Amino acid sequence: DEIGRLVVSCPDGPGIVALISSFLYRQGANILQSDQFSTGSRGGRFMLRTEFQLGRVRERLPELERQFEFEVARRLRATFRVRAAATPARVAIFVSRHDHCLLDLLWRQRRGELPIEVVTVISNHADLERDVAGFGTPFLHIPVNPAMKAEAELAQLDAVAGKVDLVVLARYMQILSADFLDDVGVPVINIHHSFLPAFAGAGPYERAKARGVKLIGATAHYATEDLDEGPIIEQDVVRVSHKTGIRDLIRRGADIERSVLARAVDWHCADRVFVDGSTTVVF
Amino acid sequence: DEIGRLVVSCPDGPGIVALISSFLYRQGANILQSDQFSTGSRGGRFMLRTEFQLGRVRERLPELERQFEFEVARRLRATFRVRAAATPARVAIFVSRHDHCLLDLLWRQRRGELPIEVVTVISNHADLERDVAGFGTPFLHIPVNPAMKAEAELAQLDAVAGKVDLVVLARYMQILSADFLDDVGVPVINIHHSFLPAFAGAGPYERAKARGVKLIGATAHYATEDLDEGPIIEQDVVRVSHKTGIRDLIRRGADIERSVLARAVDWHCADRVFVDGSTTVVF
Amino acid sequence: DEIGRLVVSCPDGPGIVALISSFLYRQGANILQSDQFSTGSRGGRFMLRTEFQLGRVRERLPELERQFEFEVARRLRATFRVRAAATPARVAIFVSRHDHCLLDLLWRQRRGELPIEVVTVISNHADLERDVAGFGTPFLHIPVNPAMKAEAELAQLDAVAGKVDLVVLARYMQILSADFLDDVGVPVINIHHSFLPAFAGAGPYERAKARGVKLIGATAHYATEDLDEGPIIEQDVVRVSHKTGIRDLIRRGADIERSVLARAVDWHCADRVFVDGSTTVVF
Amino acid sequence: DEIGRLVVSCPDGPGIVALISSFLYRQGANILQSDQFSTGSRGGRFMLRTEFQLGRVRERLPELERQFEFEVARRLRATFRVRAAATPARVAIFVSRHDHCLLDLLWRQRRGELPIEVVTVISNHADLERDVAGFGTPFLHIPVNPAMKAEAELAQLDAVAGKVDLVVLARYMQILSADFLDDVGVPVINIHHSFLPAFAGAGPYERAKARGVKLIGATAHYATEDLDEGPIIEQDVVRVSHKTGIRDLIRRGADIERSVLARAVDWHCADRVFVDGSTTVVF
Repeated sequence: DEIGRLVVSCPDGPGIVALISSFLYRQGANILQSDQFSTGSRGGRFMLRTEFQLGRVRERLPELERQFEFEVARRLRATFRVRAAATPARVAIFVSRHDHCLLDLLWRQRRGELPIEVVTVISNHADLERDVAGFGTPFLHIPVNPAMKAEAELAQLDAVAGKVDLVVLARYMQILSADFLDDVGVPVINIHHSFLPAFAGAGPYERAKARGVKLIGATAHYATEDLDEGPIIEQDVVRVSHKTGIRDLIRRGADIERSVLARAVDWHCADRVFVDGSTTVVF
Repeated sequence: DEIGRLVVSCPDGPGIVALISSFLYRQGANILQSDQFSTGSRGGRFMLRTEFQLGRVRERLPELERQFEFEVARRLRATFRVRAAATPARVAIFVSRHDHCLLDLLWRQRRGELPIEVVTVISNHADLERDVAGFGTPFLHIPVNPAMKAEAELAQLDAVAGKVDLVVLARYMQILSADFLDDVGVPVINIHHSFLPAFAGAGPYERAKARGVKLIGATAHYATEDLDEGPIIEQDVVRVSHKTGIRDLIRRGADIERSVLARAVDWHCADRVFVDGSTTVVF
Repeated sequence: DEIGRLVVSCPDGPGIVALISSFLYRQGANILQSDQFSTGSRGGRFMLRTEFQLGRVRERLPELERQFEFEVARRLRATFRVRAAATPARVAIFVSRHDHCLLDLLWRQRRGELPIEVVTVISNHADLERDVAGFGTPFLHIPVNPAMKAEAELAQLDAVAGKVDLVVLARYMQILSADFLDDVGVPVINIHHSFLPAFAGAGPYERAKARGVKLIGATAHYATEDLDEGPIIEQDVVRVSHKTGIRDLIRRGADIERSVLARAVDWHCADRVFVDGSTTVVF
Repeated sequence: DEIGRLVVSCPDGPGIVALISSFLYRQGANILQSDQFSTGSRGGRFMLRTEFQLGRVRERLPELERQFEFEVARRLRATFRVRAAATPARVAIFVSRHDHCLLDLLWRQRRGELPIEVVTVISNHADLERDVAGFGTPFLHIPVNPAMKAEAELAQLDAVAGKVDLVVLARYMQILSADFLDDVGVPVINIHHSFLPAFAGAGPYERAKARGVKLIGATAHYATEDLDEGPIIEQDVVRVSHKTGIRDLIRRGADIERSVLARAVDWHCADRVFVDGSTTVVF
């Protein structure tokens, strides 16, 4: 319980690093690792993520936050967040019938690979209930159909709003409304089964096969109102050939999907992802 | 001069391999390597590429061809081609100002890495004349502008039609007309500087940067009337990040472009690529 | 139940493909896919794998086998095997405490991704019993210690000999004796957690960190008496950096290990792997 | 001429970033990008690389250096270097007969891709003289044979000592003596044609083929007295199969060698590589 994390975003200008690092030094914190990026020294935005060592960091957080606001953030017109690295992010996973992304996240959580605590799994089907139970994670079956989509979303909101720091759509085959995305109040990460912007929309593997591409991919991105248009966090691809039938394409794609999503969730929950307009900065 | 190559394409059905391999056996040819693929056993298309060993193969080609037509091709309603592996493909390279794809092809030819003989380099700019001269390859400067595009294409046709087996667009920044593609009478391979179908059209690196993709790529495809829609031969990608500025993106892309194009040209000239509708089979 | 598979290995020479394909044609089999390779036309070895379509293939297998032996194999001095593609390979998995390779194989089996039936999981520890039970697979705990290693191997042999087609060492941290490898009578596939031949032996990740390599890898190979020297089936690597601590190295390595092992098991059980001295041919 | 670069290495401890960034702020420098790494907060080593914007940076360098020494370096017991980013590194390339690494470096220099100025190419053969002349770079032919190796090294030293910042062995097939490495006084980067530590020593492709590896690679490292044991800067691999003969292996390897070496030279000359014992930190 000695590692803390500070993330800062502000208009770029001279002296920012000096101001922040001096603040940490005065607090007795030792910087372990630091990343920074500027989108341009004139009129650009400066982003910084620092991991530091500081005794009893968790109990000192409120005071640190107050002081940083007063001594640094105001002068830099900065948004910032300071956290204890040991505190896992509370996550809700939405899923339909495909198990691969869900199980990979649950398994990595159990291994201690991800800084997350999955507090609930919500599905529009009951199929995966038993698998989820095997991990000791609560499972909530909320059926969704066109006639009662609004009710379903209310039930989903009720289950997650204020209770989680992140919603992960782990191959959740329903479109969430703009209202839901607004009301949920936390970031939503989606995994799309293509190398966006190629094959946005439905049936990406079928369309990839028809177009004869030699690589297929997967994309993890923040969900926004514009489907498949949100800022991309991570992507990866795998080689295919004319021999790869549509079933094999889907299988190989599944392997890419689960690893891309796991990396995106890991990086987001470790405060390594900054949204910069329609793109991301990933430290 | 002992290695021959046979490529066959016909409607799928039973007994094809037996018929072809028996033919080769009767000719005294020893099969060294063979690849085959069927797009479906019912109503599909069967494709085969065989490398065989046969003494004095080059002088026996006309007779082999005649006999294969008579004994095999007619029965299978097949198109086919038989060649001496040692005969290089005659290639014309079209280029504008970017040198990377052109120089890579010329250098690989000199090393003996590619089964090609570049018979002419044609450019709408004079910039690369000296580099090409260093390889002892003829260079033809045919300026192109909107007012005289038709004349330019006639001059290009005059320089290549009937004299080459393949035209390679090695970052040739002009659009060739449908008439040219018809009249040139040989396949045309283009390198597009994106991972198609993402970022088809102009300015792919700029658009990739704006969209915030985490991988950029290149695509070698046969040129067709529909720009950037032709059958894909090869693709590859390279990882980029928020730190990769637009200049770096272009540099890294250039590395991918030249290697993807070199592979596509190699495979095409080694008779390893079959066009199957809007896709390709690559053995 | 209409797809059959024929694998053949024999001294290279002319007419082999004609002989085999004619045989299949006479049987009424339609070749769907065929791969072949020769280690050299003079004195080399010819290997072939064919997938064919044939009605009621499973019940016709004994007769097919008898006829192939009589009409083809004798003349070619060939070893061969003919199988129904739908028959899964019976597999025993040996494991110690690391769960990632084991769970990945069991999960892929459940998804129908692998042509295997895991008939038993054998471990020198009881830790993974419950996870294995969740898949409905028998679990056998056979403790191993130096004093009773011979007895343990006898118990293992008793559990698998004659009952499986393949043994998979899915991070089994014990060395199997040469006697065991002889007596078990089926191939044994091992996953080594390095890019062999680099870092053969114990502690590969620690040694990779100390040497400062920029990529780490995993290797699936057939187990032989000479530890880590058996024919390699598949390898893959992942990029690491100075920031990747030893724990992260192990985590990223685990991802590579499980996918490399899954591919090796898939290919072996689909009869795609031929051992050629100390190397393999993988179709 | 406004971008400067500062690299610092010192024992880790609290307040280092604050001290350095405050110094830069007082000088009026705006930090554009900064990377840092510590090998451990207790007894470890801290390394930092900063790019900053500062008017007339080149003429202010001597004064900056003096002040940094006085105000920062002494207190931190740090080694450091401050440079104008626009000043290219002076490089000597040693080569034998293989042209691929040499030509790639010369071509990238010409394109402005590398922050280097190749001041001389030295070869023990005359073969590549004409290619080098095409780039306008001086070429020095210094024959090497066992009887006169010492004289050859003296001639090489005479040509480079004090005149270059880096020596690159671009497939130079001679072993340089420990004396030469001492006397040359600048880092020496070598490209080894295998994925070290696999296949250290001679004939790596032949040995890779015999061992049946599924990936081959290349390694760029600092040359040290212990052959193939120096700190690794960069590595990469490419997939091969049983079909890849030894000639193809060498060709594909050449592609990896040239790109790995180009990256290593780029990173070294951009001050991104820190040696840390037998390993490197690459920002």
